[in-house]
Amino acid sequence: MSKPEQDAALRCQQLEQENADLRTSLEMLRQDQEAGYHVQKRLLPLNAMEHQGFRLNYWLQPSLYLSGDFLDFWSPKPGKLLFYLADVSGHGASSAFVTILLKYIVSRYAKEDDLSPARLCTRINEELLVGGLDKHLTLVMGCLDTQTRQLTYTLGAHLPVPLMVSDGEVQELEGSGMPIGLFPGAVYKDYTCTFPEKGCLMMASDGVLEVLPGEGLEARQKEWRLRVAASGGDLESLLQRLPGEPDNWPDDVTLMTVSGF
Amino acid sequence: MSKPEQDAALRCQQLEQENADLRTSLEMLRQDQEAGYHVQKRLLPLNAMEHQGFRLNYWLQPSLYLSGDFLDFWSPKPGKLLFYLADVSGHGASSAFVTILLKYIVSRYAKEDDLSPARLCTRINEELLVGGLDKHLTLVMGCLDTQTRQLTYTLGAHLPVPLMVSDGEVQELEGSGMPIGLFPGAVYKDYTCTFPEKGCLMMASDGVLEVLPGEGLEARQKEWRLRVAASGGDLESLLQRLPGEPDNWPDDVTLMTVSGF
Repeated sequence: MSKPEQDAALRCQQLEQENADLRTSLEMLRQDQEAGYHVQKRLLPLNAMEHQGFRLNYWLQPSLYLSGDFLDFWSPKPGKLLFYLADVSGHGASSAFVTILLKYIVSRYAKEDDLSPARLCTRINEELLVGGLDKHLTLVMGCLDTQTRQLTYTLGAHLPVPLMVSDGEVQELEGSGMPIGLFPGAVYKDYTCTFPEKGCLMMASDGVLEVLPGEGLEARQKEWRLRVAASGGDLESLLQRLPGEPDNWPDDVTLMTVSGF
Repeated sequence: MSKPEQDAALRCQQLEQENADLRTSLEMLRQDQEAGYHVQKRLLPLNAMEHQGFRLNYWLQPSLYLSGDFLDFWSPKPGKLLFYLADVSGHGASSAFVTILLKYIVSRYAKEDDLSPARLCTRINEELLVGGLDKHLTLVMGCLDTQTRQLTYTLGAHLPVPLMVSDGEVQELEGSGMPIGLFPGAVYKDYTCTFPEKGCLMMASDGVLEVLPGEGLEARQKEWRLRVAASGGDLESLLQRLPGEPDNWPDDVTLMTVSGF
Protein backbone atom coordinates (compact mmCIF):
# COMPACT_ATOMS: atom_id res chain seq x y z
CA MET A 1 0.00 0.00 0.00
CA SER A 2 1.40 3.43 -0.96
CA LYS A 3 1.79 6.18 1.67
CA PRO A 4 -1.25 8.23 0.46
CA GLU A 5 -3.32 5.03 0.40
CA GLN A 6 -2.27 4.25 3.96
CA ASP A 7 -3.14 7.79 5.10
CA ALA A 8 -6.55 7.60 3.48
CA ALA A 9 -7.25 4.20 5.03
CA LEU A 10 -6.28 5.54 8.44
CA ARG A 11 -8.49 8.62 8.02
CA CYS A 12 -11.42 6.38 7.01
CA GLN A 13 -10.87 4.25 10.07
CA GLN A 14 -10.91 7.30 12.36
CA LEU A 15 -14.06 8.62 10.74
CA GLU A 16 -15.77 5.27 11.08
CA GLN A 17 -14.97 5.21 14.77
CA GLU A 18 -16.23 8.79 15.23
CA ASN A 19 -19.41 7.89 13.38
CA ALA A 20 -19.98 4.88 15.57
CA ASP A 21 -19.52 7.01 18.72
CA LEU A 22 -21.87 9.67 17.42
CA ARG A 23 -24.48 7.06 16.57
CA THR A 24 -24.30 5.67 20.10
CA SER A 25 -24.77 9.10 21.71
CA LEU A 26 -27.57 9.93 19.32
CA GLU A 27 -29.33 6.64 19.95
CA MET A 28 -29.19 7.21 23.70
CA LEU A 29 -30.81 10.65 23.43
CA ARG A 30 -33.35 9.37 20.90
CA GLN A 31 -34.42 6.55 23.16
CA ASP A 32 -34.71 8.96 26.05
CA GLN A 33 -36.89 11.34 24.07
CA GLU A 34 -39.01 8.49 22.78
CA ALA A 35 -39.58 7.22 26.30
CA GLY A 36 -40.62 10.76 27.23
CA TYR A 37 -43.04 10.96 24.32
CA HIS A 38 -44.48 7.60 25.28
CA VAL A 39 -45.38 9.10 28.68
CA GLN A 40 -46.72 12.27 27.09
CA LYS A 41 -48.91 10.28 24.68
CA ARG A 42 -50.54 8.48 27.58
CA LEU A 43 -51.99 11.84 28.57
CA LEU A 44 -53.68 12.45 25.24
CA PRO A 45 -57.34 11.44 24.90
CA LEU A 46 -58.49 8.48 22.84
CA ASN A 47 -58.86 9.42 19.19
CA ALA A 48 -61.73 9.68 18.14
CA MET A 49 -64.43 10.10 20.72
CA GLU A 50 -68.16 10.19 20.02
CA HIS A 51 -70.45 11.67 22.59
CA GLN A 52 -74.16 12.48 22.29
CA GLY A 53 -74.18 13.52 18.66
CA PHE A 54 -70.67 14.98 18.54
CA ARG A 55 -67.34 13.55 17.42
CA LEU A 56 -63.87 14.74 18.46
CA ASN A 57 -60.85 14.00 16.28
CA TYR A 58 -57.26 15.11 16.30
CA TRP A 59 -53.92 14.76 14.63
CA LEU A 60 -50.73 15.74 16.46
CA GLN A 61 -47.21 15.76 15.05
CA PRO A 62 -44.33 16.94 17.29
CA SER A 63 -41.47 18.55 15.35
CA LEU A 64 -38.93 16.72 17.49
CA TYR A 65 -40.04 13.93 19.84
CA LEU A 66 -41.67 15.73 22.72
CA SER A 67 -44.57 18.02 22.01
CA GLY A 68 -45.29 21.56 23.13
CA ASP A 69 -48.78 21.17 21.65
CA PHE A 70 -51.37 19.48 23.77
CA LEU A 71 -55.09 18.81 23.73
CA ASP A 72 -57.71 17.06 25.74
CA PHE A 73 -61.44 16.40 25.68
CA TRP A 74 -63.84 14.54 27.88
CA SER A 75 -67.32 14.71 29.34
CA PRO A 76 -66.95 16.07 32.88
CA LYS A 77 -70.73 15.99 33.46
CA PRO A 78 -73.66 14.42 31.63
CA GLY A 79 -74.55 16.56 28.64
CA LYS A 80 -71.28 18.54 28.70
CA LEU A 81 -68.18 18.22 26.54
CA LEU A 82 -65.07 20.04 27.59
CA PHE A 83 -62.17 20.38 25.14
CA TYR A 84 -59.02 22.42 24.68
CA LEU A 85 -56.05 22.76 22.40
CA ALA A 86 -52.93 24.42 23.79
CA ASP A 87 -49.68 25.51 22.21
CA VAL A 88 -46.82 26.07 24.66
CA SER A 89 -44.14 28.60 23.62
CA GLY A 90 -41.21 26.81 21.99
CA HIS A 91 -41.23 23.07 21.44
CA GLY A 92 -39.48 19.95 22.70
CA ALA A 93 -38.73 18.89 26.27
CA SER A 94 -39.02 22.26 28.00
CA SER A 95 -42.47 22.89 26.47
CA ALA A 96 -43.60 19.32 26.99
CA PHE A 97 -43.07 19.80 30.74
CA VAL A 98 -45.72 22.50 30.69
CA THR A 99 -48.24 20.32 28.86
CA ILE A 100 -48.03 17.74 31.68
CA LEU A 101 -48.72 20.43 34.22
CA LEU A 102 -51.52 21.88 32.11
CA LYS A 103 -53.34 18.56 31.92
CA TYR A 104 -53.08 18.19 35.67
CA ILE A 105 -54.27 21.73 36.45
CA VAL A 106 -57.24 21.57 34.06
CA SER A 107 -58.38 18.12 35.26
CA ARG A 108 -58.23 19.34 38.81
CA TYR A 109 -60.17 22.59 38.37
CA ALA A 110 -62.67 21.14 35.94
CA LYS A 111 -63.87 18.97 38.83
CA GLU A 112 -64.56 21.90 41.12
CA ASP A 113 -65.53 24.54 38.66
CA ASP A 114 -68.77 25.41 36.95
CA LEU A 115 -67.05 24.63 33.64
CA SER A 116 -66.56 28.20 32.53
CA PRO A 117 -63.61 28.08 30.10
CA ALA A 118 -62.72 31.69 31.02
CA ARG A 119 -62.52 30.91 34.72
CA LEU A 120 -60.52 27.75 34.03
CA CYS A 121 -58.06 29.86 31.99
CA THR A 122 -57.75 32.38 34.82
CA ARG A 123 -56.80 29.52 37.11
CA ILE A 124 -54.26 28.08 34.65
CA ASN A 125 -52.74 31.54 34.25
CA GLU A 126 -52.32 31.92 38.01
CA GLU A 127 -50.87 28.45 38.48
CA LEU A 128 -48.36 28.77 35.66
CA LEU A 129 -47.15 32.10 37.02
CA VAL A 130 -46.78 30.70 40.53
CA GLY A 131 -45.02 27.62 39.14
CA GLY A 132 -42.20 29.84 37.87
CA LEU A 133 -41.47 27.71 34.81
CA ASP A 134 -41.05 30.84 32.68
CA LYS A 135 -43.18 29.36 29.91
CA HIS A 136 -46.46 30.58 28.48
CA LEU A 137 -49.04 29.16 26.15
CA THR A 138 -51.91 30.03 23.86
CA LEU A 139 -55.10 28.09 24.14
CA VAL A 140 -58.60 27.61 22.83
CA MET A 141 -60.97 26.00 25.28
CA GLY A 142 -64.65 25.22 24.84
CA CYS A 143 -67.49 23.70 26.79
CA LEU A 144 -70.32 22.35 24.71
CA ASP A 145 -73.81 21.67 25.99
CA THR A 146 -74.80 18.70 23.85
CA GLN A 147 -78.54 19.25 24.49
CA THR A 148 -78.90 22.95 23.75
CA ARG A 149 -75.87 22.96 21.36
CA GLN A 150 -74.64 26.05 23.15
CA LEU A 151 -70.88 26.39 22.91
CA THR A 152 -69.13 28.49 25.56
CA TYR A 153 -65.50 29.16 24.74
CA THR A 154 -62.53 31.32 25.50
CA LEU A 155 -59.55 32.30 23.37
CA GLY A 156 -56.17 32.77 25.00
CA ALA A 157 -54.33 34.57 22.16
CA HIS A 158 -54.62 31.44 20.08
CA LEU A 159 -53.72 31.39 16.39
CA PRO A 160 -55.01 30.42 13.93
CA VAL A 161 -58.45 31.55 15.12
CA PRO A 162 -60.76 28.51 15.34
CA LEU A 163 -63.05 28.16 12.32
CA MET A 164 -66.62 26.94 12.25
CA VAL A 165 -67.45 25.13 9.02
CA SER A 166 -71.15 24.89 8.25
CA ASP A 167 -73.11 24.51 5.01
CA GLY A 168 -69.95 25.12 2.97
CA GLU A 169 -69.32 28.40 4.81
CA VAL A 170 -66.34 29.10 7.04
CA GLN A 171 -66.58 31.56 9.95
CA GLU A 172 -63.98 32.62 12.49
CA LEU A 173 -64.99 32.29 16.14
CA GLU A 174 -65.35 35.77 17.60
CA GLY A 175 -63.39 37.00 20.57
CA SER A 176 -59.90 37.59 21.85
CA GLY A 177 -57.80 37.01 24.97
CA MET A 178 -54.30 37.15 26.37
CA PRO A 179 -51.70 34.40 26.34
CA ILE A 180 -51.65 32.25 29.48
CA GLY A 181 -48.80 32.29 31.97
CA LEU A 182 -47.42 35.71 31.01
CA PHE A 183 -49.45 38.38 32.79
CA PRO A 184 -50.46 38.27 36.47
CA GLY A 185 -54.13 39.06 36.87
CA ALA A 186 -54.97 38.47 33.20
CA VAL A 187 -58.73 38.19 32.73
CA TYR A 188 -60.38 35.83 30.27
CA LYS A 189 -63.82 36.14 28.76
CA ASP A 190 -66.42 33.53 27.90
CA TYR A 191 -67.99 33.84 24.47
CA THR A 192 -70.98 31.86 23.33
CA CYS A 193 -72.46 30.68 20.05
CA THR A 194 -74.82 27.98 18.88
CA PHE A 195 -73.09 24.98 17.38
CA PRO A 196 -74.67 24.62 13.92
CA GLU A 197 -76.38 21.37 12.84
CA LYS A 198 -73.75 19.21 11.11
CA GLY A 199 -71.26 21.98 11.75
CA CYS A 200 -67.60 21.37 12.40
CA LEU A 201 -65.25 23.39 14.56
CA MET A 202 -61.68 23.25 13.25
CA MET A 203 -58.79 24.17 15.54
CA ALA A 204 -55.05 24.05 14.97
CA SER A 205 -51.77 25.05 16.59
CA ASP A 206 -49.79 27.86 14.96
CA GLY A 207 -47.27 25.38 13.56
CA VAL A 208 -49.74 24.85 10.74
CA LEU A 209 -49.34 28.47 9.63
CA GLU A 210 -45.60 27.96 9.20
CA VAL A 211 -46.07 25.28 6.58
CA LEU A 212 -48.51 27.31 4.51
CA PRO A 213 -47.35 29.59 1.69
CA GLY A 214 -47.70 33.38 1.90
CA GLU A 215 -45.88 36.38 3.27
CA GLY A 216 -46.91 37.29 6.80
CA LEU A 217 -49.56 36.13 9.19
CA GLU A 218 -52.54 37.59 7.32
CA ALA A 219 -51.72 35.81 4.08
CA ARG A 220 -51.14 32.51 5.83
CA GLN A 221 -54.33 32.73 7.82
CA LYS A 222 -56.16 33.32 4.57
CA GLU A 223 -54.51 30.22 3.08
CA TRP A 224 -55.52 28.28 6.16
CA ARG A 225 -59.13 29.40 5.82
CA LEU A 226 -59.20 28.45 2.15
CA ARG A 227 -57.86 24.99 2.83
CA VAL A 228 -60.23 24.41 5.72
CA ALA A 229 -63.12 25.46 3.47
CA ALA A 230 -61.97 23.09 0.73
CA SER A 231 -61.72 20.21 3.22
CA GLY A 232 -65.28 20.77 4.40
CA GLY A 233 -63.98 20.29 7.95
CA ASP A 234 -62.68 16.78 7.34
CA LEU A 235 -59.36 16.17 9.10
CA GLU A 236 -57.95 13.65 6.62
CA SER A 237 -58.90 15.78 3.68
CA LEU A 238 -57.37 18.84 5.32
CA LEU A 239 -54.10 17.01 5.98
CA GLN A 240 -53.83 16.15 2.30
CA ARG A 241 -54.21 19.84 1.52
CA LEU A 242 -51.17 20.82 3.61
CA PRO A 243 -47.87 21.09 1.71
CA GLY A 244 -44.70 19.11 2.42
CA GLU A 245 -43.94 16.15 4.62
CA PRO A 246 -45.18 16.32 8.25
CA ASP A 247 -41.89 14.77 9.42
CA ASN A 248 -40.03 17.81 8.15
CA TRP A 249 -42.34 20.52 9.47
CA PRO A 250 -40.40 22.99 11.60
CA ASP A 251 -42.84 23.29 14.53
CA ASP A 252 -45.30 21.00 16.29
CA VAL A 253 -48.54 20.82 14.32
CA THR A 254 -51.90 19.85 15.79
CA LEU A 255 -55.29 19.74 14.17
CA MET A 256 -58.47 19.11 16.13
CA THR A 257 -62.12 18.99 15.15
CA VAL A 258 -65.41 18.92 16.99
CA SER A 259 -68.15 17.86 14.59
CA GLY A 260 -71.87 17.51 15.06
CA PHE A 261 -73.59 14.71 13.22
CA MET B 1 -4.65 9.45 -8.37
CA SER B 2 -4.81 5.66 -8.57
CA LYS B 3 -8.15 3.84 -8.49
CA PRO B 4 -7.74 2.60 -4.86
CA GLU B 5 -6.75 6.14 -3.81
CA GLN B 6 -9.84 7.55 -5.50
CA ASP B 7 -12.05 4.98 -3.78
CA ALA B 8 -10.57 5.75 -0.39
CA ALA B 9 -10.99 9.50 -0.92
CA LEU B 10 -14.62 8.99 -1.90
CA ARG B 11 -15.24 6.81 1.15
CA CYS B 12 -13.68 9.48 3.40
CA GLN B 13 -15.89 12.11 1.84
CA GLN B 14 -19.03 10.04 2.46
CA LEU B 15 -18.00 9.39 6.03
CA GLU B 16 -17.32 13.08 6.64
CA GLN B 17 -20.77 13.94 5.36
CA GLU B 18 -22.40 11.29 7.56
CA ASN B 19 -20.36 12.58 10.43
CA ALA B 20 -21.58 16.14 9.90
CA ASP B 21 -25.21 14.97 9.65
CA LEU B 22 -24.91 12.98 12.85
CA ARG B 23 -23.40 15.94 14.66
CA THR B 24 -26.28 18.15 13.56
CA SER B 25 -28.93 15.68 14.78
CA LEU B 26 -27.09 15.16 18.03
CA GLU B 27 -26.70 18.88 18.61
CA MET B 28 -30.42 19.41 18.07
CA LEU B 29 -31.38 16.78 20.64
CA ARG B 30 -28.72 18.02 23.06
CA GLN B 31 -29.99 21.56 22.89
CA ASP B 32 -33.53 20.35 23.40
CA GLN B 33 -32.57 18.34 26.47
CA GLU B 34 -30.54 21.22 27.85
CA ALA B 35 -33.49 23.58 27.46
CA GLY B 36 -35.59 21.02 29.31
CA TYR B 37 -33.07 20.79 32.11
CA HIS B 38 -32.96 24.56 32.33
CA VAL B 39 -36.70 24.51 33.07
CA GLN B 40 -36.32 21.64 35.51
CA LYS B 41 -33.54 23.43 37.38
CA ARG B 42 -35.78 26.44 37.92
CA LEU B 43 -37.92 24.19 40.10
CA LEU B 44 -35.09 23.24 42.43
CA PRO B 45 -34.68 25.26 45.64
CA LEU B 46 -31.84 27.72 46.19
CA ASN B 47 -28.73 25.94 47.40
CA ALA B 48 -28.00 26.36 50.33
CA MET B 49 -30.76 27.62 52.59
CA GLU B 50 -30.36 28.57 56.24
CA HIS B 51 -33.40 28.74 58.42
CA GLN B 52 -33.62 29.13 62.18
CA GLY B 53 -30.54 27.17 63.10
CA PHE B 54 -30.68 24.65 60.25
CA ARG B 55 -28.94 24.52 56.88
CA LEU B 56 -30.08 22.61 53.79
CA ASN B 57 -27.60 21.65 51.09
CA TYR B 58 -27.74 19.47 48.04
CA TRP B 59 -25.86 18.21 45.06
CA LEU B 60 -27.70 16.79 42.05
CA GLN B 61 -26.17 15.19 38.97
CA PRO B 62 -28.48 13.83 36.23
CA SER B 63 -27.00 10.88 34.33
CA LEU B 64 -28.27 12.29 31.03
CA TYR B 65 -29.63 15.83 30.89
CA LEU B 66 -33.03 15.59 32.48
CA SER B 67 -33.31 14.29 36.00
CA GLY B 68 -35.55 11.67 37.55
CA ASP B 69 -34.24 12.75 40.95
CA PHE B 70 -35.85 15.75 42.55
CA LEU B 71 -35.82 17.55 45.86
CA ASP B 72 -37.32 20.58 47.49
CA PHE B 73 -37.29 22.38 50.82
CA TRP B 74 -38.92 25.48 52.18
CA SER B 75 -40.57 26.88 55.24
CA PRO B 76 -44.34 26.56 54.73
CA LYS B 77 -45.11 28.04 58.18
CA PRO B 78 -43.05 29.90 60.77
CA GLY B 79 -40.97 27.40 62.71
CA LYS B 80 -41.43 24.57 60.22
CA LEU B 81 -39.11 23.23 57.56
CA LEU B 82 -40.49 20.85 54.97
CA PHE B 83 -38.11 18.88 52.75
CA TYR B 84 -38.14 15.88 50.47
CA LEU B 85 -35.90 13.94 48.15
CA ALA B 86 -37.56 11.81 45.47
CA ASP B 87 -36.23 9.31 42.98
CA VAL B 88 -38.55 8.56 40.05
CA SER B 89 -38.23 5.11 38.45
CA GLY B 90 -35.93 5.27 35.42
CA HIS B 91 -34.20 8.48 34.43
CA GLY B 92 -34.25 11.08 31.66
CA ALA B 93 -37.23 12.82 30.06
CA SER B 94 -39.99 10.39 31.05
CA SER B 95 -38.96 10.50 34.72
CA ALA B 96 -38.36 14.24 34.65
CA PHE B 97 -42.02 14.72 33.69
CA VAL B 98 -43.02 13.14 36.97
CA THR B 99 -40.73 15.41 39.00
CA ILE B 100 -42.54 18.46 37.60
CA LEU B 101 -45.86 17.01 38.63
CA LEU B 102 -44.51 16.03 42.04
CA LYS B 103 -43.36 19.56 42.81
CA TYR B 104 -46.76 20.87 41.84
CA ILE B 105 -48.73 18.32 43.88
CA VAL B 106 -46.62 18.74 47.01
CA SER B 107 -46.69 22.57 46.87
CA ARG B 108 -50.42 22.45 46.51
CA TYR B 109 -51.19 20.04 49.36
CA ALA B 110 -48.59 21.48 51.69
CA LYS B 111 -50.69 24.65 51.72
CA GLU B 112 -53.84 22.89 52.84
CA ASP B 113 -52.43 20.12 54.93
CA ASP B 114 -51.31 19.94 58.51
CA LEU B 115 -47.82 19.12 57.20
CA SER B 116 -47.90 15.44 57.97
CA PRO B 117 -45.39 13.86 55.56
CA ALA B 118 -47.36 10.60 55.64
CA ARG B 119 -50.60 12.31 54.61
CA LEU B 120 -48.78 14.26 51.91
CA CYS B 121 -47.41 10.98 50.55
CA THR B 122 -50.85 9.43 50.55
CA ARG B 123 -52.05 12.35 48.41
CA ILE B 124 -49.09 12.10 46.01
CA ASN B 125 -49.73 8.36 45.66
CA GLU B 126 -53.38 8.97 44.76
CA GLU B 127 -52.62 11.76 42.30
CA LEU B 128 -49.91 9.81 40.49
CA LEU B 129 -52.19 6.81 40.10
CA VAL B 130 -55.04 8.97 38.77
CA GLY B 131 -52.62 10.75 36.42
CA GLY B 132 -51.96 7.46 34.64
CA LEU B 133 -48.33 8.24 33.82
CA ASP B 134 -47.32 4.68 34.71
CA LYS B 135 -44.35 5.91 36.74
CA HIS B 136 -43.59 5.50 40.41
CA LEU B 137 -41.09 6.96 42.80
CA THR B 138 -39.40 6.46 46.13
CA LEU B 139 -39.23 9.33 48.53
CA VAL B 140 -38.05 10.54 51.90
CA MET B 141 -39.99 13.49 53.25
CA GLY B 142 -39.55 15.28 56.56
CA CYS B 143 -41.08 18.14 58.47
CA LEU B 144 -38.86 19.68 61.08
CA ASP B 145 -40.07 21.83 63.96
CA THR B 146 -37.15 24.22 64.38
CA GLN B 147 -38.19 25.14 67.94
CA THR B 148 -38.69 21.71 69.50
CA ARG B 149 -36.24 20.04 67.04
CA GLN B 150 -38.86 17.36 66.50
CA LEU B 151 -38.50 15.72 63.09
CA THR B 152 -41.58 14.03 61.63
CA TYR B 153 -40.78 11.99 58.55
CA THR B 154 -42.03 9.28 56.24
CA LEU B 155 -40.14 6.80 54.09
CA GLY B 156 -41.61 5.74 50.76
CA ALA B 157 -39.42 2.71 50.01
CA HIS B 158 -36.45 5.01 49.72
CA LEU B 159 -32.89 3.68 49.46
CA PRO B 160 -30.34 4.29 50.80
CA VAL B 161 -32.06 4.75 54.17
CA PRO B 162 -31.43 8.32 55.43
CA LEU B 163 -28.60 8.53 57.95
CA MET B 164 -28.35 10.77 61.00
CA VAL B 165 -24.78 11.74 61.75
CA SER B 166 -24.20 12.96 65.30
CA ASP B 167 -21.16 13.02 67.57
CA GLY B 168 -19.23 10.84 65.11
CA GLU B 169 -21.98 8.20 65.17
CA VAL B 170 -24.14 7.24 62.19
CA GLN B 171 -27.68 5.96 62.68
CA GLU B 172 -30.27 4.86 60.12
CA LEU B 173 -33.67 6.53 60.38
CA GLU B 174 -36.19 3.93 61.52
CA GLY B 175 -39.26 3.04 59.54
CA SER B 176 -40.46 1.71 56.21
CA GLY B 177 -43.06 2.45 53.57
CA MET B 178 -44.23 1.57 50.07
CA PRO B 179 -43.13 3.18 46.83
CA ILE B 180 -45.40 5.98 45.64
CA GLY B 181 -47.59 5.73 42.55
CA LEU B 182 -47.72 1.92 42.41
CA PHE B 183 -50.40 0.71 44.82
CA PRO B 184 -53.90 2.20 45.14
CA GLY B 185 -54.75 2.82 48.76
CA ALA B 186 -51.15 2.56 49.98
CA VAL B 187 -50.84 3.93 53.50
CA TYR B 188 -47.84 5.88 54.77
CA LYS B 189 -46.77 6.31 58.35
CA ASP B 190 -45.25 9.27 60.17
CA TYR B 191 -42.20 8.53 62.30
CA THR B 192 -40.68 10.97 64.74
CA CYS B 193 -37.30 11.57 66.32
CA THR B 194 -35.46 14.45 67.92
CA PHE B 195 -32.98 16.15 65.65
CA PRO B 196 -29.68 15.99 67.61
CA GLU B 197 -27.73 19.17 68.44
CA LYS B 198 -25.24 19.76 65.64
CA GLY B 199 -26.57 16.60 63.99
CA CYS B 200 -26.75 16.14 60.23
CA LEU B 201 -29.31 14.17 58.26
CA MET B 202 -27.79 12.74 55.08
CA MET B 203 -30.08 11.62 52.26
CA ALA B 204 -29.26 10.31 48.79
CA SER B 205 -30.93 8.80 45.74
CA ASP B 206 -30.18 5.16 44.95
CA GLY B 207 -27.88 6.14 42.08
CA VAL B 208 -25.21 6.63 44.71
CA LEU B 209 -25.30 2.92 45.57
CA GLU B 210 -24.51 2.03 41.97
CA VAL B 211 -21.19 3.85 42.06
CA LEU B 212 -20.06 2.23 45.29
CA PRO B 213 -18.07 -1.02 45.33
CA GLY B 214 -19.52 -4.23 46.73
CA GLU B 215 -21.67 -7.17 45.70
CA GLY B 216 -25.35 -6.65 46.35
CA LEU B 217 -27.40 -4.02 48.13
CA GLU B 218 -26.28 -4.88 51.67
CA ALA B 219 -22.60 -4.49 50.90
CA ARG B 220 -23.15 -1.21 49.09
CA GLN B 221 -25.30 0.23 51.84
CA LYS B 222 -22.54 -0.63 54.26
CA GLU B 223 -20.03 1.19 52.03
CA TRP B 224 -22.36 4.15 51.93
CA ARG B 225 -22.63 4.24 55.69
CA LEU B 226 -18.84 4.08 56.10
CA ARG B 227 -18.29 6.95 53.71
CA VAL B 228 -20.98 9.07 55.28
CA ALA B 229 -19.39 8.45 58.68
CA ALA B 230 -15.96 9.40 57.35
CA SER B 231 -17.36 12.61 55.85
CA GLY B 232 -18.88 13.62 59.19
CA GLY B 233 -21.99 14.64 57.24
CA ASP B 234 -20.20 17.20 55.08
CA LEU B 235 -21.43 17.16 51.49
CA GLU B 236 -18.18 18.24 49.82
CA SER B 237 -16.17 15.80 51.83
CA LEU B 238 -18.61 13.00 51.01
CA LEU B 239 -18.45 13.77 47.29
CA GLN B 240 -14.68 13.39 47.38
CA ARG B 241 -15.17 9.98 48.94
CA LEU B 242 -17.27 8.68 46.04
CA PRO B 243 -15.36 6.81 43.32
CA GLY B 244 -15.19 7.72 39.63
CA GLU B 245 -16.26 10.77 37.67
CA PRO B 246 -19.80 12.08 38.32
CA ASP B 247 -20.20 12.72 34.57
CA ASN B 248 -19.87 9.00 33.93
CA TRP B 249 -22.12 7.71 36.67
CA PRO B 250 -24.83 5.45 35.23
CA ASP B 251 -27.84 6.84 37.14
CA ASP B 252 -28.92 10.22 38.50
CA VAL B 253 -27.20 10.88 41.82
CA THR B 254 -28.49 13.29 44.45
CA LEU B 255 -27.13 14.05 47.90
CA MET B 256 -28.97 16.22 50.36
CA THR B 257 -28.23 17.25 53.93
CA VAL B 258 -30.15 18.94 56.71
CA SER B 259 -27.71 20.10 59.38
CA GLY B 260 -28.29 21.77 62.70
CA PHE B 261 -25.77 24.35 63.83
